[in-house]
Amino acid sequence: MPLAHIHFMYDLVEGDLQEAKRKLADEVADSIARNVVHHHQGSPKDLVTVVFHDIGADDWAVGGTLFSDRNP
Amino acid sequence: MPLAHIHFMYDLVEGDLQEAKRKLADEVADSIARNVVHHHQGSPKDLVTVVFHDIGADDWAVGGTLFSDRNP
Amino acid sequence: MPLAHIHFMYDLVEGDLQEAKRKLADEVADSIARNVVHHHQGSPKDLVTVVFHDIGADDWAVGGTLFSDRNP
Amino acid sequence: MPLAHIHFMYDLVEGDLQEAKRKLADEVADSIARNVVHHHQGSPKDLVTVVFHDIGADDWAVGGTLFSDRNP
Amino acid sequence: MPLAHIHFMYDLVEGDLQEAKRKLADEVADSIARNVVHHHQGSPKDLVTVVFHDIGADDWAVGGTLFSDRNP
Amino acid sequence: MPLAHIHFMYDLVEGDLQEAKRKLADEVADSIARNVVHHHQGSPKDLVTVVFHDIGADDWAVGGTLFSDRNP
Repeated sequence: MPLAHIHFMYDLVEGDLQEAKRKLADEVADSIARNVVHHHQGSPKDLVTVVFHDIGADDWAVGGTLFSDRNP
Repeated sequence: MPLAHIHFMYDLVEGDLQEAKRKLADEVADSIARNVVHHHQGSPKDLVTVVFHDIGADDWAVGGTLFSDRNP
Repeated sequence: MPLAHIHFMYDLVEGDLQEAKRKLADEVADSIARNVVHHHQGSPKDLVTVVFHDIGADDWAVGGTLFSDRNP
Repeated sequence: MPLAHIHFMYDLVEGDLQEAKRKLADEVADSIARNVVHHHQGSPKDLVTVVFHDIGADDWAVGGTLFSDRNP
Repeated sequence: MPLAHIHFMYDLVEGDLQEAKRKLADEVADSIARNVVHHHQGSPKDLVTVVFHDIGADDWAVGGTLFSDRNP
Repeated sequence: MPLAHIHFMYDLVEGDLQEAKRKLADEVADSIARNVVHHHQGSPKDLVTVVFHDIGADDWAVGGTLFSDRNP
């Protein structure tokens, strides 16, 4: 029932992207279950949904500047 | 003015994806218009926006496990 | 697994708000299950999550004009 | 710290898409900084995040009709 | 048809919150219309929807620290 | 730069809600920084934004049934 939408740039992940998502989904679901799910609800972690969204370097700006326009 | 963001895995749709979206958009707009739009606002269905978002099997986890890691 | 975020102005609902949400949640889950959930997945409707978000008349603008600034 | 998610159809942009995003990110960050960031927080524009999301013509419906089904 | 969800802390706005939203909605709709709406679509600004979301100081964290736990 | 929107029912949290958010924000930022932020970007955890959203028991439905209509 708790729900996390996580947005990040897949291109910036070093190593295996699927493995990174696997660990992230597991750790986030675990943290949500431990911290904010009522303990009397059976297995709290099973209730947690995590959704990942890829954001391109042209689609993310901080301070009005696209990430793709920043210096490396 | 009412707005629905609907997330699902396009890969799981059997048959014609565009036809599935066509029916879903129409039915959801109709349900929103009937249930939560004030009746004095002209044609309520015209006010409803529906946006679809494709989620990959690697981008959706329930209980900390990616959909792509589940058994079929 | 499919997920709908539905945003509307609760203040504009005539009659019983909870009953309106009850019908809307049921109809939207039903439409999603019929149209975009793979038929071999058991009871598709059980997989659908619907989340409602209240938007105030000061928090919604079309054409650059707040809803609360429009003529009735 | 303020955050804007902006959804539009990239296919409808005439001219250079990256340049359009560049201007939009800058102008939106500037408007947010001027209007809703507390003036005592250093450089307010630096705090603003803008994220763009591409929506396809099959993924956007108004009045229950997909954009791709409308007449031009 | 373009859509912006803008999240910020209403408590941090100095002066009149509704006036701040009024200006922000107008400027963002104007920027979106000028930059990313196809010019042959009539009055592009009328197509833009802007939705504001209030975020509390306990509901926003950067670097893992809640805004309400930061020094002023 | 990575961004997480986490939705849950604040009413279901046992104990101190702010402390629960504090731990959740810290753990999620830490997990995102370890798993999906490029290691050459300075202090990756500082780049992570986490936003919490409260969802009421009338505003969340699974399988077409509002949480507030379920048996305890």
